[in-house]
Amino acid sequence: PRARDVGVVIGTMSPGPHNAITDVDGVGIGHATLVEGTRLHTGVTAIVPHAGNMFRQRVPAAIVVGNGFGKLAGITQVQELGEIETPILLTGTLSTWKVADAAVDWLLRQPGMENVRSINPVVGETNDGYLSDIRARPLTPALVEQALTRLSYGDVQEGDVGAGAGTVAFGWKGGIGTSSRHLAESDGGYTVGVLVQSNFGGQLTIAGVPVWKSLPDPAEYARSLKVPPPSTGDGSIMMVVATDAPLDAANLQRLARRALVGLARTGSVMSNGSGDYVIAFSTAKENLRDPDVSVQPARSVAGEAMTPLFEATAEATEEAIVNSLFRAHTVHGNRGTAAALPLKPVLDALRRAGALSPAKPHGK
Amino acid sequence: PRARDVGVVIGTMSPGPHNAITDVDGVGIGHATLVEGTRLHTGVTAIVPHAGNMFRQRVPAAIVVGNGFGKLAGITQVQELGEIETPILLTGTLSTWKVADAAVDWLLRQPGMENVRSINPVVGETNDGYLSDIRARPLTPALVEQALTRLSYGDVQEGDVGAGAGTVAFGWKGGIGTSSRHLAESDGGYTVGVLVQSNFGGQLTIAGVPVWKSLPDPAEYARSLKVPPPSTGDGSIMMVVATDAPLDAANLQRLARRALVGLARTGSVMSNGSGDYVIAFSTAKENLRDPDVSVQPARSVAGEAMTPLFEATAEATEEAIVNSLFRAHTVHGNRGTAAALPLKPVLDALRRAGALSPAKPHGK
Amino acid sequence: PRARDVGVVIGTMSPGPHNAITDVDGVGIGHATLVEGTRLHTGVTAIVPHAGNMFRQRVPAAIVVGNGFGKLAGITQVQELGEIETPILLTGTLSTWKVADAAVDWLLRQPGMENVRSINPVVGETNDGYLSDIRARPLTPALVEQALTRLSYGDVQEGDVGAGAGTVAFGWKGGIGTSSRHLAESDGGYTVGVLVQSNFGGQLTIAGVPVWKSLPDPAEYARSLKVPPPSTGDGSIMMVVATDAPLDAANLQRLARRALVGLARTGSVMSNGSGDYVIAFSTAKENLRDPDVSVQPARSVAGEAMTPLFEATAEATEEAIVNSLFRAHTVHGNRGTAAALPLKPVLDALRRAGALSPAKPHGK
Amino acid sequence: PRARDVGVVIGTMSPGPHNAITDVDGVGIGHATLVEGTRLHTGVTAIVPHAGNMFRQRVPAAIVVGNGFGKLAGITQVQELGEIETPILLTGTLSTWKVADAAVDWLLRQPGMENVRSINPVVGETNDGYLSDIRARPLTPALVEQALTRLSYGDVQEGDVGAGAGTVAFGWKGGIGTSSRHLAESDGGYTVGVLVQSNFGGQLTIAGVPVWKSLPDPAEYARSLKVPPPSTGDGSIMMVVATDAPLDAANLQRLARRALVGLARTGSVMSNGSGDYVIAFSTAKENLRDPDVSVQPARSVAGEAMTPLFEATAEATEEAIVNSLFRAHTVHGNRGTAAALPLKPVLDALRRAGALSPAKPHGK
Repeated sequence: PRARDVGVVIGTMSPGPHNAITDVDGVGIGHATLVEGTRLHTGVTAIVPHAGNMFRQRVPAAIVVGNGFGKLAGITQVQELGEIETPILLTGTLSTWKVADAAVDWLLRQPGMENVRSINPVVGETNDGYLSDIRARPLTPALVEQALTRLSYGDVQEGDVGAGAGTVAFGWKGGIGTSSRHLAESDGGYTVGVLVQSNFGGQLTIAGVPVWKSLPDPAEYARSLKVPPPSTGDGSIMMVVATDAPLDAANLQRLARRALVGLARTGSVMSNGSGDYVIAFSTAKENLRDPDVSVQPARSVAGEAMTPLFEATAEATEEAIVNSLFRAHTVHGNRGTAAALPLKPVLDALRRAGALSPAKPHGK
Repeated sequence: PRARDVGVVIGTMSPGPHNAITDVDGVGIGHATLVEGTRLHTGVTAIVPHAGNMFRQRVPAAIVVGNGFGKLAGITQVQELGEIETPILLTGTLSTWKVADAAVDWLLRQPGMENVRSINPVVGETNDGYLSDIRARPLTPALVEQALTRLSYGDVQEGDVGAGAGTVAFGWKGGIGTSSRHLAESDGGYTVGVLVQSNFGGQLTIAGVPVWKSLPDPAEYARSLKVPPPSTGDGSIMMVVATDAPLDAANLQRLARRALVGLARTGSVMSNGSGDYVIAFSTAKENLRDPDVSVQPARSVAGEAMTPLFEATAEATEEAIVNSLFRAHTVHGNRGTAAALPLKPVLDALRRAGALSPAKPHGK
Repeated sequence: PRARDVGVVIGTMSPGPHNAITDVDGVGIGHATLVEGTRLHTGVTAIVPHAGNMFRQRVPAAIVVGNGFGKLAGITQVQELGEIETPILLTGTLSTWKVADAAVDWLLRQPGMENVRSINPVVGETNDGYLSDIRARPLTPALVEQALTRLSYGDVQEGDVGAGAGTVAFGWKGGIGTSSRHLAESDGGYTVGVLVQSNFGGQLTIAGVPVWKSLPDPAEYARSLKVPPPSTGDGSIMMVVATDAPLDAANLQRLARRALVGLARTGSVMSNGSGDYVIAFSTAKENLRDPDVSVQPARSVAGEAMTPLFEATAEATEEAIVNSLFRAHTVHGNRGTAAALPLKPVLDALRRAGALSPAKPHGK
Repeated sequence: PRARDVGVVIGTMSPGPHNAITDVDGVGIGHATLVEGTRLHTGVTAIVPHAGNMFRQRVPAAIVVGNGFGKLAGITQVQELGEIETPILLTGTLSTWKVADAAVDWLLRQPGMENVRSINPVVGETNDGYLSDIRARPLTPALVEQALTRLSYGDVQEGDVGAGAGTVAFGWKGGIGTSSRHLAESDGGYTVGVLVQSNFGGQLTIAGVPVWKSLPDPAEYARSLKVPPPSTGDGSIMMVVATDAPLDAANLQRLARRALVGLARTGSVMSNGSGDYVIAFSTAKENLRDPDVSVQPARSVAGEAMTPLFEATAEATEEAIVNSLFRAHTVHGNRGTAAALPLKPVLDALRRAGALSPAKPHGK
C-alpha cells in the first residue's frame, strides 16, 4: 500500500490529487522494466517535464549533489545554462551511458530535431548490482524508447518497477516512490512533486520513528526465508523535484537542496559510497526557454515566499522514499534476495509511538 | 539539564567523556556574555582548535553553506587554502565586523605575530536582534579578548551564554549547545565534537518525535506569561565540527555537510532567511600546517571509513541543538521575551512515543 | 595618462563616453584617500550601483573567486540570494572589518533604515602593507562616509587614490583603474564597465606585448632611485563589473568569470597568495529587487547574446588594469617605494611590436 | 611543424624532453582516428595516467569547468572523491556515451576487474559536427579499445588525429596539441604536461600577437580554395593537465584553473556555447590511492611552492593549443572544409612583432 493509505502521514502539508509528481501539471512518468528469471531486475524510468518538444521549450532546472559517488550524466550543462533540454532518465549504474546513447538516438529522430548536432541527456542511476547482473548491461534502445513514450499523467507505478526494479534501500526492497504537496493559496497555491529511486542505507526512520529498531535484521530475515541476504552496500538515491512555481535556476538550486532535508529524516547520512543527487525543474509556462531568443523573460518566486516551497520539497521527498519501500515486493535476484519491508512491525512501531493516523485511503 | 541527563538520547553512538566539543583533545571554548537589563543580551563565543599559535600551526578546515543568508567572515580563504589560521568566533549579526576587527587586533599583538600583515579571522553570526538591541553593536574588544583567553577544556557552558545570549530557536530560548561522539576502535577510535549557536525555526522534533505538536505556541505561551511574544523570524544556525581524525580539507568538507543532516532532523528546512553554516576542522597533529613548508603531509581517512565519521557528525549536531534548548533560561529582552523550552510537555511527548531512556546522569 | 590617450588600445570594442564604470548609467564612484607622510597610503573606494536606497532596490549580483587568498566580506549572502543590498567597498586588507563596520553604521543611519536589523556589506580588499603601515588600521568612519557620499558619475580618478593609494602591481605602483565597453546595437546596445584595484604580480603584458622584458627590474630601478625596493609579494586584485544589460544572477556569475580572462592577459597566473575576486551586478531597472515582493521579475540576456558581453568584460578588465598602472604616481611608502611604471620603455616596446595606435585623446 | 620548432616560444619556462604530456613519467597517449571520405572525421584519444590498474591505484584528480556547455561524463564522482579510477577519453560530442559504454565494457573485461560492479569513466568531448557526420555516431568499441591500448610514451601525434580529427579552432583546423614544462630544481623539479583537444573560437593570439589581424578570414579563405567555409560555431576545448608533483585533489583543482589562464591568452573568452573543461591529475607514486585502505597517506605541495606549477600549467596549455593548430592539416569534411592555419602570415606577424625566436628545432 501507499504509506498514506495505511495511516502514515509525513509532515503537515496536503498532497495533490495523486500524491505524485504528476500532480505538477504536464509531468509524465514512463517505466520500462526488464526482469528475466532471478538474473535480471533492472529498468529505466523517464520523467518528462512537459509534452512539448523539450529541446525547443527548455525547463529552468538545477542539479544538486548530496554525495557525488555516482555517474550522473549531463550535470555541467544544466549547471551552466540553468536548463534541461531533454526528458530525465533513471536507470542502473552500468547502464548509464547505454541509456544516454539510446535516448540521444531516439531524440534525434523526433520531428523538428533533424538539424540538432548537440544535445545533453540527463541520466541518473543507482546501483542495482545485487538483484541484477549489472555487468551484463542488458537494457536495449527499445526499452528506453518505451520509458520515454508510455507515459502516465495520473497515478504512478511505484516500488520494483522501471529503474527501481533492482534497487535495495535500508536492506529491504526499495525502488520508485513519489509524493506531492500543494501549497495554500496564500502561499502561492503552487504544487511540488517528487519522484525517487531509492537504493541507499542507514537506520530506517519513518515519520520520526526509528522503526529500524523494531525490524528484523534484513540479512537474518532473508536467511529465515532460506534466501541469500541482501547486500549491505551503501547505495544511492536519485531524487527528482518538479514544481509549477515560477522559479529561476538559482532558486531551483535552493529548492533541490531541501530534498536532502527529507532524505536525512529517513535515516540516511549520505554514506561515503552513496550517489545522492537532486534534479529540480520548473514547468511554469512563462519561464520555458526558447534557445533562440536573446532576452529571456522570466519570473521567480522570491524571498520569504520560498520557505513553503522548501517545506513542501522536504515533506514530499520523505514521503516518496517511504512509498518506494511500502510499494515494493520481495525480489529474488542475481546475488540474493531483497525482501519487501515487513509492514506489520513498521506499523506497530508507528502506532506505539503515536505516529499512525487513522487510515484514510487517499481518494481521487 | 542536558538532554542526555534526563533520558533524551540521540542516535546510537557513544559520546565522549564531556559529551562536548572539548572531547576533541586540545579544543578550548571561551564565552563572553554581555547582558544589560532587558536591552542587551549578546556576546561572543570562541572555538580555539589548539593551544599553540594557530597562525603558525594551521588546522585543515572546510566551511559548508547550508543556506547562505548570513555574514560569515573569512570563508573564501578557508575554501581556497583548506585551512584556518585563527580561532573561530561566533557572535550576533551586526557585531560580525567589530568582533573580527577586535580579534585581528588581539591576534596581531600576540608573541610571534609582530610581522604579520595578513590574517583571516573566521567569524560567524546569528541574529540576536529580538532579545538584544542589535543596532547598538555594543560588543567591546575586551569582551572579544575575554572569549579568546578564558577557555574551558572540559565542560562547556550552554544555553543563553556567549554568542547564544540572545538567540531564539523554534520560538523558544536557544543558544549554545554541544555534544560529541566517540567512534569504536574498529572504526578508528576517533572523536567528533560539535558546538552550535541555535537561532532558527521549524517544527521542533527531538529524537524523531514531533514535540512541537505537544508544546504551546511560543507566542501564546509568552502572552500567558504576560510578556511580548518572541519573533517569528526564521533565524540561523552556526555549527562548528571538530575532530581528531586525520582529514584533509576535501574530506572535512564532506564531513561538514553531514552536520546539515543533524540539523534537518530537528525540524529545520533551512528557511529562506536562515544563515546555516558549518565550519569543520581537524586537530590531528601530523596534519597541522606550517605556512612556510613547501610540501605538507595530507593524511586522510578514506573511503568507507568516512561513514562512521559522517554518522557521528549528524548525531552530535542533532544533540548539540537539543542541548542548546534544554540548557537555556527564559530571557526577557529588548523587544520581548523568549521563554525556556517547557521541558515537561517535551519529556511527556518523548515518553509517550517511547523515545525516552531511563535517565542516566552522564558522569565523568 | 590613460592608456588609450597615448595609443594603447586593448581589444576591438568601443568604450563608452568616459571609458569608465560610470558609463553604466547610475553607477557612482567615491574615493577617500589617507596619506600621512611616508607611513600611511591607504583608503577606501566605493562603487554605488544606483542612487536610490540599495537596501530597498537591490541589484542582481554575483561574486566569482579566481584565487581565494583574501578576506572579502559578504560573499555567501550574495551567492545565496543573487543580489547586493549595499554599496560595494574596497580597501586595504587589515581594514576590511573596520570599513565594513563603519559602512553598516552609516547605512543604518540613513532614512528608511530605522528598522533594519540585518544587512550584508560587501567589502573587498588587497594588501597595501608595503607602502602603508597596515597594522595600524588607520581608516576612520569619516573616511568611509566620505567614500560613500562624494560620488563621481563621469570621470573617475585612477591610480594612487582611494583603495589604490598603497597598492603595487607587477612591482610598480598600481591602484584604481577603470574602463568600459559599449556593445553594438545589434548585440543589444548594452554597456559594461569595470573598475579594478590592482595589487598583483606576474609578467606585465600589455595588448599582448611582454613589456616586462623591456622594463628595468622594479627592485633595481628603485635602488637606482636610492629608495628601498618594492615588495615582491604576490598581491591580489579586486574587479568590479557593472552592466545595464538585464542579467540574472546566474548570468552575472558567468559574466564575472570573464573578468579573469582579462586578468590573465595582463600576465597574471593568479599566484598562490593572491586574492583575485570579481563582483558583478546589473543595474537594469526592471530587475531591481524589492525584498518584500513574493514573485520578482528575472529577465536575462540569454544564449549566444551573452558572448559579446563576455568579450566586453574581458576587454574592459584588461584595459582597467593597464589604466591603474598608467595613472599611478611614484609613492614613497612605509617600507619602501613603488615607482610609477616607466612609460617610455613600455610605449617603445609597444611601438616596436606594432601594438601602438596613433594617439587619439579620448574626447567626451 | 610544432610551434617551438619554427621559433614560436610561449613563456619563459623550459619544456621537458618531448615537450608533451608524456614528459610526466608514466603517462601514455592513445589515438584512434576514423576517417571515411569527406563524411567522417572523428576519433578517440585516451590519456592513461599510469600503466598499472587505474581502478586499484587511483590518481588524485580534479575537474574544473570554464564554461559548462558540454557533456563531460564522470565529473561528480571525481569532485566528490578527488580521484580518477579509469583512463581519460576524449571524443566527439554525440559519441560521448557510446565511448563511455565501450570503455566500461573493455575495462570490466581486464584482469582483476571480474567483481567490479561500479566504475566511473571520465569522457570529455568537443563538437566535430562540421567536418564529421556527427549524428551518425560511428565510433565502434574496437576504436575505443585501440585508443586505450596503443599508447605512446614519447612523442605524441598532434593535429587532426584521434579526438582531434574533426575539430575546428578559430575557424582553422584544430585538434590535438600538447606541451610540457619542467620546473627548476629549486622550485621542486616537477614536470607539468598538458594535452588539449581544440575546437573553440575567438581572436587567435599567439605569444601575445593578435595574428588574427594578419590572417585571411577563414570563411573567405575557404571560398578562395573553392570549398565551403567552416562553421562559425563557438566550439569547446578539453584540457588535460598531468603532473608528477605530489598534489592533493584540492591543489589539483587550483592547478586546473590555471589552464584557463593559458586558454585566455590564445584569444578565447569562453563563449556562451563553449564547453571548456580542465581535468588535472597527479601521478606521484606516494599519493596513488588504494580504494581499500582506511587512511590515505598523502603529501601535497603547499603555499608559495604552488605558483611555479601554476605558471607551468598556463604556459603549457597556451603552447599546446598553438601546437594543435600548427600541426593540423586541411580537412575536407562533411559540411565543408577547415583549412590548416596558414603559417606564413602567422610567422610574419610574429616576426614583425619581435615575437619570433631563432628557430631551434627541439631535439630529443
